[in-house]
Amino acid sequence: MVENEALIHLAEQFGKLSGIGRKSALRMAYAVLAFSDEEAKEFAEAILEAKANIHLCPICQNLTDRDVCSICSDLDRDGSVICVVEDAKAVSALEKVREYRGLYHVLHGVISPINGVTPEKLKLKELLPRLDGSVKEVIVATNPTVEGEATAMYISKLVKPLGVRVTRLAYGVPVGADLEYADEITLYRALEGRRDF
Amino acid sequence: MVENEALIHLAEQFGKLSGIGRKSALRMAYAVLAFSDEEAKEFAEAILEAKANIHLCPICQNLTDRDVCSICSDLDRDGSVICVVEDAKAVSALEKVREYRGLYHVLHGVISPINGVTPEKLKLKELLPRLDGSVKEVIVATNPTVEGEATAMYISKLVKPLGVRVTRLAYGVPVGADLEYADEITLYRALEGRRDF
Repeated sequence: MVENEALIHLAEQFGKLSGIGRKSALRMAYAVLAFSDEEAKEFAEAILEAKANIHLCPICQNLTDRDVCSICSDLDRDGSVICVVEDAKAVSALEKVREYRGLYHVLHGVISPINGVTPEKLKLKELLPRLDGSVKEVIVATNPTVEGEATAMYISKLVKPLGVRVTRLAYGVPVGADLEYADEITLYRALEGRRDF
Repeated sequence: MVENEALIHLAEQFGKLSGIGRKSALRMAYAVLAFSDEEAKEFAEAILEAKANIHLCPICQNLTDRDVCSICSDLDRDGSVICVVEDAKAVSALEKVREYRGLYHVLHGVISPINGVTPEKLKLKELLPRLDGSVKEVIVATNPTVEGEATAMYISKLVKPLGVRVTRLAYGVPVGADLEYADEITLYRALEGRRDF
């Protein structure tokens, strides 16, 4: 037996991370074995520490190490707009633009019946109490995938009756991209959403 | 601050694994946060356990959880042939073929002056004492890269004077591959190494 139990078990842990296949997971487990004892200990502690320190903001459900996250507790931000995103990574991506000054709401997933993700499993019920009249617009910024679209539609149907404006991010050709390489659906959406100069 | 210290620190740990870029590392750190507390604990423990249980075989330098690895302690194996490989993954790959019945020697790297890896940093000094007369052949199975080639050459020069036959794995077109997609060097080596029917 060359690949022993402890190694396989470690590889399985890496395999639980989304997007990591069996071979990559095993490669990572081998890489950990090449670490010094101190490095391995630091790695293990980093996992426990991140898990212990980071929890969900009770308001926007984003990951935070404070009681209320830095965005929700920032009084300079525009509380009349909430941008609904799939995950914490999307918040990071949008914050890097330094353009949006409203608040966020993190769903932690998208509706996907095939994967057993029903609307109840998302942080959707936490969104509705936030729409107490002070919020004028909900920007649905789920990913442009089938599930993301379906989730956006679901949210729109839920929120619109409350008298809140619901918008969606613009679709189109990414800046810097070559039309030649854009797929048909993106081009179609880009044409459909064309604007006057 | 959306991406906090504990998260960044965890991402840095993932980034230490070879082949993992900054973005992938961050994605993995986020994935860990989505784990349950038990799962995170299991992950951290798996790292420490693998590190604690697995060490180098004092003979072949392969990773093992025994005093002497299962291959070195298997009396049915042919002790007259030693296959020298770069890492433990290569041993696993070769063992899957179920053809080779000799022993192994794991270098844990290749000579690479640009990365500061000198021959002294490899498990080469552990190889020479094994060539005590009972070994008739050393198969150098380092990867077909520039560093792997240089290391193979170095080993050949070290071992040949001891009167031991030194061989190298055959180069050629991989089985099942299309000639169209084979690179020129591989094709050249395949031609050079052609054999009679």
